[in-house]
Amino acid sequence: MSIINLDYISANPLLVEVQEAMIEAIKTNYGNPSSPHRLGDQATMALDRARESVARLINAASPGEIVFTSSGSESINHAIKGVAWAKASKGRHIVTSNVEHNAVLKSVRRLRQMDYQITSVPVDGYGLVNPDDVAKAITDDTILVSIMHSNNEIGTIEPIKEIAQITKERKVIFHTDAVSSVGVVPIDVQELGVDLLSFSANQFYGPSGVGGLYIRRGTGLWSLIDGGAQENNKRAGTENLIGIIGAGVAADLAYRDMDKRVRHSRRLKERLVKGLKEKIEDIHINGHPEISLPNLVSVSIKYIEGESIVLMLDEEGIVVSTRSACASGSLRASHVLVSIDMDFADAQGTLVLAFGQEISESDIDRFLDVLVQVVATLRNMSPLYRQAKGS
Amino acid sequence: MSIINLDYISANPLLVEVQEAMIEAIKTNYGNPSSPHRLGDQATMALDRARESVARLINAASPGEIVFTSSGSESINHAIKGVAWAKASKGRHIVTSNVEHNAVLKSVRRLRQMDYQITSVPVDGYGLVNPDDVAKAITDDTILVSIMHSNNEIGTIEPIKEIAQITKERKVIFHTDAVSSVGVVPIDVQELGVDLLSFSANQFYGPSGVGGLYIRRGTGLWSLIDGGAQENNKRAGTENLIGIIGAGVAADLAYRDMDKRVRHSRRLKERLVKGLKEKIEDIHINGHPEISLPNLVSVSIKYIEGESIVLMLDEEGIVVSTRSACASGSLRASHVLVSIDMDFADAQGTLVLAFGQEISESDIDRFLDVLVQVVATLRNMSPLYRQAKGS
Repeated sequence: MSIINLDYISANPLLVEVQEAMIEAIKTNYGNPSSPHRLGDQATMALDRARESVARLINAASPGEIVFTSSGSESINHAIKGVAWAKASKGRHIVTSNVEHNAVLKSVRRLRQMDYQITSVPVDGYGLVNPDDVAKAITDDTILVSIMHSNNEIGTIEPIKEIAQITKERKVIFHTDAVSSVGVVPIDVQELGVDLLSFSANQFYGPSGVGGLYIRRGTGLWSLIDGGAQENNKRAGTENLIGIIGAGVAADLAYRDMDKRVRHSRRLKERLVKGLKEKIEDIHINGHPEISLPNLVSVSIKYIEGESIVLMLDEEGIVVSTRSACASGSLRASHVLVSIDMDFADAQGTLVLAFGQEISESDIDRFLDVLVQVVATLRNMSPLYRQAKGS
Repeated sequence: MSIINLDYISANPLLVEVQEAMIEAIKTNYGNPSSPHRLGDQATMALDRARESVARLINAASPGEIVFTSSGSESINHAIKGVAWAKASKGRHIVTSNVEHNAVLKSVRRLRQMDYQITSVPVDGYGLVNPDDVAKAITDDTILVSIMHSNNEIGTIEPIKEIAQITKERKVIFHTDAVSSVGVVPIDVQELGVDLLSFSANQFYGPSGVGGLYIRRGTGLWSLIDGGAQENNKRAGTENLIGIIGAGVAADLAYRDMDKRVRHSRRLKERLVKGLKEKIEDIHINGHPEISLPNLVSVSIKYIEGESIVLMLDEEGIVVSTRSACASGSLRASHVLVSIDMDFADAQGTLVLAFGQEISESDIDRFLDVLVQVVATLRNMSPLYRQAKGS
């Protein structure tokens, strides 16, 4: 049975070209980029090439503005805690939103334990932050605003450019978690006007274990990992060179194929949303209908539970997610769905469907066919459903 | 020209078995261990296997005491800062030594900026810490002692077991940076009695980009990277699974071959030290002659500079290091050599020679032959040498 993977938000599969580059790197057996001899030189060249590829993908002014990390989560921790610590003498107030990824939520929670104050702005029913709310939340004590570029559970894309204009005026550092966006939609850090931007290679067919942090030149923040002089003195530790080489190739392909990928994703998303609406009653498509990621659909299916849907789809070789992969293990309703005012019971039946290049229209059709059966089976067993339908 | 790599301290080459396992992992295209479906299950199993292998290598009581990180440096930052933050209400004093790796030195320097007090104990001429000095340095305010297991520049192995007895009595958490030791000499965390131990897979023929932190059950410390529930809720971020799988295989081989490796290294070290002493005058072998790593020799060659030696050896296909790879980029004399009271001028001509399984006795002989010529050439050009020899 071939597997249909609609859980691209957890991790993308590696592209063949990325696999080949990583295998080549393994066989090359590079040295340590920090070594001042031939093995080090080869490694440094490979590292520089990857950095240039990633810089181009997000249009950084210079490759030196890219710091490779081990994950999107590390990048986010580095950005938020790094600014908070470096600017503590200036102020201890941070503005963020109610729908951020756990890496942001838990980083600011840590900072709260270190006597920082956090203001979390709300979102509307689509999950959109209102830039005016950010403006109002900023005080003389504010040192950082962190608002995500796109939401990893419902796909809504936030008004980053508008918020950046506000933070620039108010002289506050602006970080955006763009993990779900980089490689999926065009990202131009200069056009956006952000100071810090986090991303992860596994969202664009690169390996897990490689993230990146864009640090606009001149942005003052502390390192998260202190030690050696790696990454322009911003992130110590011998580099994950094999992974970074894979990430560089993945960035090259994302840059080259961006338009094609977006078109392909849009076509699938339209087909998927249309199919869901036509074939299953009592559902809700979450997130903004237009200002959103092309490769992600969040659907809440009333009267049944996501966990059961995942398991039954799994038996049919279809892989989906019920919530942000990084949040699994927690049993509470998703904070994102709570923030867009979804009813707790309805939130339980929410699937996050994320897809990529390898997924075809016939995969979407097969998924829809199987889902219709799964939903019918589960609803037949659901007291909630029978009660609602009065049978 | 075949290359002789005597810079194993910067990074070990990958063993063939490690390469094969990583290539297999790349082709398998694992999912995200956090996903509650079949792709996640396969990934989780692979991750668990690697964790068991590493736990066995250092004799942890349970695999759950191992946290995978992205490098030895991250492990060290996690251990030191994590304890400092978690125990701030108990005290703000940390004891460390003068010869620690940069990741330790710079972590405690950061903590100083956060109003922690640091006491750094001295070492003797061999680089040995005196446990009595540690005992004297501990105050009621001390929350952490961090002393390295072995020194990455001179190879001296510190009296960790004795220090652990002191920290246990005084109820202070004890971290040891064992990056240069794990996989090189037998390490038993239970016998050592440490609470936290940092290591890196690239020191035992695993990939760069994978480190680990042993956290004895019950040791309270904060995470460095907050977010998702990965690594038993101790380190967020999607795992570098390909690298971790490689690290697991490397750990298995290190466990299996430990005796053989130690014997091989000892034989080479004896030959190397004997050859250096016989063939080159005015040199000094640094570190303890017996209580030291079997795979590392630090030699200071008077009247000439390490950088020139490295470059000339490089031309002959021989790769060595002048100082800790992670410290390169800094132009100052090694703090380790300063701490063992070496003359500044003598320290300039210091080579760190570290070798592994692939190095043969004939490699050592060839290195010695070439080095003799290089030293003669450089000394002939050296005003210092001519002055000293009165010619």
